[in-house]
Amino acid sequence: MFSFIPKEESFFILFKEMTVNIIEGAQLLKEMLNNFDDPVSLQKKIKDIEHKGDQKTHELILKLNKSFITPFDREDIYALVSALDNILDAIDASAQHIITYKINKITTEAKELGFIILKICQATDKLLSLLSDKNKYEEILEICIEINSFENEADRVRIEAISHLFSEEKDPIQLIKWKEIYENLEFVTDKCEDVANIIESLVVKNA
Amino acid sequence: MFSFIPKEESFFILFKEMTVNIIEGAQLLKEMLNNFDDPVSLQKKIKDIEHKGDQKTHELILKLNKSFITPFDREDIYALVSALDNILDAIDASAQHIITYKINKITTEAKELGFIILKICQATDKLLSLLSDKNKYEEILEICIEINSFENEADRVRIEAISHLFSEEKDPIQLIKWKEIYENLEFVTDKCEDVANIIESLVVKNA
Amino acid sequence: MFSFIPKEESFFILFKEMTVNIIEGAQLLKEMLNNFDDPVSLQKKIKDIEHKGDQKTHELILKLNKSFITPFDREDIYALVSALDNILDAIDASAQHIITYKINKITTEAKELGFIILKICQATDKLLSLLSDKNKYEEILEICIEINSFENEADRVRIEAISHLFSEEKDPIQLIKWKEIYENLEFVTDKCEDVANIIESLVVKNA
Repeated sequence: MFSFIPKEESFFILFKEMTVNIIEGAQLLKEMLNNFDDPVSLQKKIKDIEHKGDQKTHELILKLNKSFITPFDREDIYALVSALDNILDAIDASAQHIITYKINKITTEAKELGFIILKICQATDKLLSLLSDKNKYEEILEICIEINSFENEADRVRIEAISHLFSEEKDPIQLIKWKEIYENLEFVTDKCEDVANIIESLVVKNA
Repeated sequence: MFSFIPKEESFFILFKEMTVNIIEGAQLLKEMLNNFDDPVSLQKKIKDIEHKGDQKTHELILKLNKSFITPFDREDIYALVSALDNILDAIDASAQHIITYKINKITTEAKELGFIILKICQATDKLLSLLSDKNKYEEILEICIEINSFENEADRVRIEAISHLFSEEKDPIQLIKWKEIYENLEFVTDKCEDVANIIESLVVKNA
Repeated sequence: MFSFIPKEESFFILFKEMTVNIIEGAQLLKEMLNNFDDPVSLQKKIKDIEHKGDQKTHELILKLNKSFITPFDREDIYALVSALDNILDAIDASAQHIITYKINKITTEAKELGFIILKICQATDKLLSLLSDKNKYEEILEICIEINSFENEADRVRIEAISHLFSEEKDPIQLIKWKEIYENLEFVTDKCEDVANIIESLVVKNA
C-alpha cells in the first residue's frame, strides 16, 4: 500500500475521509436528538462510526511513519489527526451518556446543540478541504472565525439551558444528568475549536 | 498598520497589553466577590474585558501572520497568546456562573480564591514583562515557581472549601452550584500555570 | 552535579526514576482501594510520592537547561516530563478525594479501576524503558496500543459504574461523590494515554 513515496495529496484525502466520517457521526447524533424513537440503535451506529474513525486515525499515523514527504511538519499532522479523532470521541460520549442516563425525552436546548454540532462539523470539514491550497489561507482564517462563532453559540445555549435547569428541575439527580448532557454536547464544539486552533497555528507557522 | 517590518519589541508590547487586561479582569472578579452589592454590572464589565481580550488575541495573530521576524518560534507565540486568552475566558466563566446560579452570598473561601487569582495574574504579567530580556531567564524560572505555588495554594483552598461544603451543605442543588464555583475559580489559576509552563518550555527550548 | 556535558543516557535514567515513582504511587493507590483499613496513612504516603515526583520533574527541567545534547528536541522532553508529572498528580487527586469525601467503603468497580491503573502505569514504565533504543520503535507503537486498550477498559468500567450508580444510589450527595471518584480514577488512565500520545508523536517526528 505504501510501497512508493506517497504524494502529499494522499494525506489530504485521508483528512477528508476523517471529516466525512465526523459529519456522519454528527448527523446521527442530530437524528438521535430530534427523533427519539430508537436512540439505542442510533447510539450503536455512532459507536461504529467512532470505531471507523479510530481505524482512519491509525491508518494516518502509519502513513506518517512511512512517508518521506509530508505536507506539514510531522508533529503538526499528528496533532491535527488526534484533534479530529477527539471530535468523534466527544460525539460518541454525548450519545453514550444519553443512553446510560436512561433519558426518555430530549429538551429543545439539546436539539439546538445537536443542530450547532452538525453545522460546526460541516465547517471543520470545509476547513480541512481548504488546507491543501496555499492560496486559501485568508479563507481558512475566516472559517476559523466561523467555527469560533459556532462554539460561542453552543456555549450560550449551554449556559441558558443550565440556568433554566437550575430554575425548573427540583430533582437533583435529574439535574446532574442533564447538566452533564449539555456539557457533553457543548464539548463537541470545543473539540472542533481545537482543530481550528491547530490549523490557525499551522497557517501562522507556515505564513 | 503593519506596512513596515515590525520590530520584535512590538510583540512584547502586545503581550503586555494582554496581561494588563487580564489583571483588570482579575481585579473586577475580586471586587465582585468581596463586595457583592451589584454583581450583575460587574459581570458585564468582566464580559467587556473578555471581549477586549479576544480582540487583542486576534490582533496578535494577525501580526504574527504579517511579521517576518518574531522573537520566538511562531507556533510558540501562538500557544502563548492562546493560553493568555484562556485566563480571561476562565475569569469570565467564573463570574458568569455566579450570576447564572443566582448566588446571593459569597463564602470566605471564594473571596480567598479571588485574592489568589489577582496575585497569580499579577505574577503572570511580571513573567511576560521579563520575557523580552534574555538575561532574565533565572528570574523567569523563579516566577514560574511562584505561579506554581499560587496554583497549589488555590488547589488547597478549593479542596478545603469542597470538603467543608460536603460536611455542611444538606441541599444537593446548592452543593452542585458551589462545588462548580470553587472549581471554576481554581481553574483560573490552572490557566495561569499553563502560561508559566509554556514560558518554562520556551526558556528550555531557547536555553 | 551537572559540571560535565551530560550523556544522553542520563535523561533516560531520570525518566526511569520518574516511572518507578509512578508505579509506586499506583501500587499504594491499589493497596488503599483493596484494603481500606488505614486509607489516611496511605493517602499521606501517596502525597509524599507525589512530592518526590515534583522534585524529579524539577531536576529534569534543570538538567534540560544545562544540557548541550538532548536525546530528542528539548520541547518534546519538556512535554514528556510534564505529562509524566500529571500521572502522579491524578493518582494523588484520586486518593485525596476518597479522604475528603469521607468514603467508608470501596466498591468493586473502584477496586477494578485501581487494578487497571497499576497495569497502565507498568505499561507506561515499559514504554519509557524502550525509548532509548531506536530499533524498538515497532515495539513502542505496540505498547502505545496496549495503553490505549487499558484506557478504553477503564472508560468502560467507569461508564458501567456510573450507570449502576444512577440506578441504585438514591442519595444525590453520595451520587455526586462516587461519580467524581470514578471520574478521577479513570482520569489517571487518560494521563497515561497522554504520555503514549506524546511518545507516538515523538516516534512519528523522528521516523
